[in-house]
Amino acid sequence: MNMMNNLDTAMAPEKSVESNGTARPVDWNNPRVAAILAAAAKCFARRGFSATTLAEIGKELGLRKSIVHYYFASKAALIHEVQSFTYQKYLAKVKDAASGTDPGVSRTVGVVGALWSAIRTDPTLSELNIEVWSAARRDEELKRRASDLQREANTLIDEAIADAVGAGAKVSNQRALSTLIGATLNGLSVAGYLDDAADADGAYQLFQKMLSRELSATSAS
Amino acid sequence: MNMMNNLDTAMAPEKSVESNGTARPVDWNNPRVAAILAAAAKCFARRGFSATTLAEIGKELGLRKSIVHYYFASKAALIHEVQSFTYQKYLAKVKDAASGTDPGVSRTVGVVGALWSAIRTDPTLSELNIEVWSAARRDEELKRRASDLQREANTLIDEAIADAVGAGAKVSNQRALSTLIGATLNGLSVAGYLDDAADADGAYQLFQKMLSRELSATSAS
Repeated sequence: MNMMNNLDTAMAPEKSVESNGTARPVDWNNPRVAAILAAAAKCFARRGFSATTLAEIGKELGLRKSIVHYYFASKAALIHEVQSFTYQKYLAKVKDAASGTDPGVSRTVGVVGALWSAIRTDPTLSELNIEVWSAARRDEELKRRASDLQREANTLIDEAIADAVGAGAKVSNQRALSTLIGATLNGLSVAGYLDDAADADGAYQLFQKMLSRELSATSAS
Repeated sequence: MNMMNNLDTAMAPEKSVESNGTARPVDWNNPRVAAILAAAAKCFARRGFSATTLAEIGKELGLRKSIVHYYFASKAALIHEVQSFTYQKYLAKVKDAASGTDPGVSRTVGVVGALWSAIRTDPTLSELNIEVWSAARRDEELKRRASDLQREANTLIDEAIADAVGAGAKVSNQRALSTLIGATLNGLSVAGYLDDAADADGAYQLFQKMLSRELSATSAS
């Protein structure tokens, strides 16, 4: 009846199983797989993992449950895949923002701005994050995956910071800085979601100003 | 079976009902009430609202379910009271930090530091926050209360900022600043909870430095 039981019994490896018994990796380029992942992200964000069934996700797309089940062996497998898929889409936007401009403080700030605008344009992302944090309290595997994805995002931010301060330069607080940026964006996304009247964008603008100042001070020293 | 149903059916006013039918406000100074609220906070933080029963909360204290029910008419009433109780305890620490020192940038930074140390010393607070954010997606009343409490915290931070910049001085971005501070602390608490290896305290130190710099620039202008 509770979330823990629902997730525990659904726990399974991240791969669907072929009729010959070998694991088949999930193909994100398959349009049907991508559609199922997007529909699942929406359902999970809105109603939570435990209250969402594979049948409901299929219904969103006019597909039978058996079709969803063909691509994803279990709800747990689908949850993990949605988590990775959504995060990778988000990180891809950041990589786009990082390419094409000259390295420096403004490029780094641009990367952080791209992260923020990805959060603001897709409310599903914030709600899915909250669902993952919540479920992670009772699901060690989900927690491990969430902290891996968080580290991956921090690494991207780290690279952007290294850009700003110049190659070879040592930044003593680089890790603290990337942790701070990721945490602030997460916190601002929650503030915007909890209270429409909260000026999350104004707070972001201020953070960006404080960040530029910090990066300039760091690169100059 | 899902969290939404559990919360909806349990929805009731925030007061217990006397035998004569009049509502009785919850008395936080009653040691038994305080013990029930603390035990409930721990259970809710660990297992979530929907998976926790009044009987389990009573069991933590060796009390029968009927005793818990005597003080709290329903699980929803208990959830709302735990939310307020935990938040007020947290805000009281902040008020303590604000009194006794001279107004100025360092007092303001001290208030923010007190918020951070309250978060760090009580992991229940972060987990309870995550549970509230998660349940708020499906419970309008909980969401309304969460955003009210968030605004109350922001007002406290606002007052601390006004202190720093001096009475009568106009701060154009004061509201953005208090939103940013609240959001960053929330985000850092999630980072620390998701990944023990994340340097949440280092990131906090850096934020404090950036904040002092911003406040000094604002008070000087």
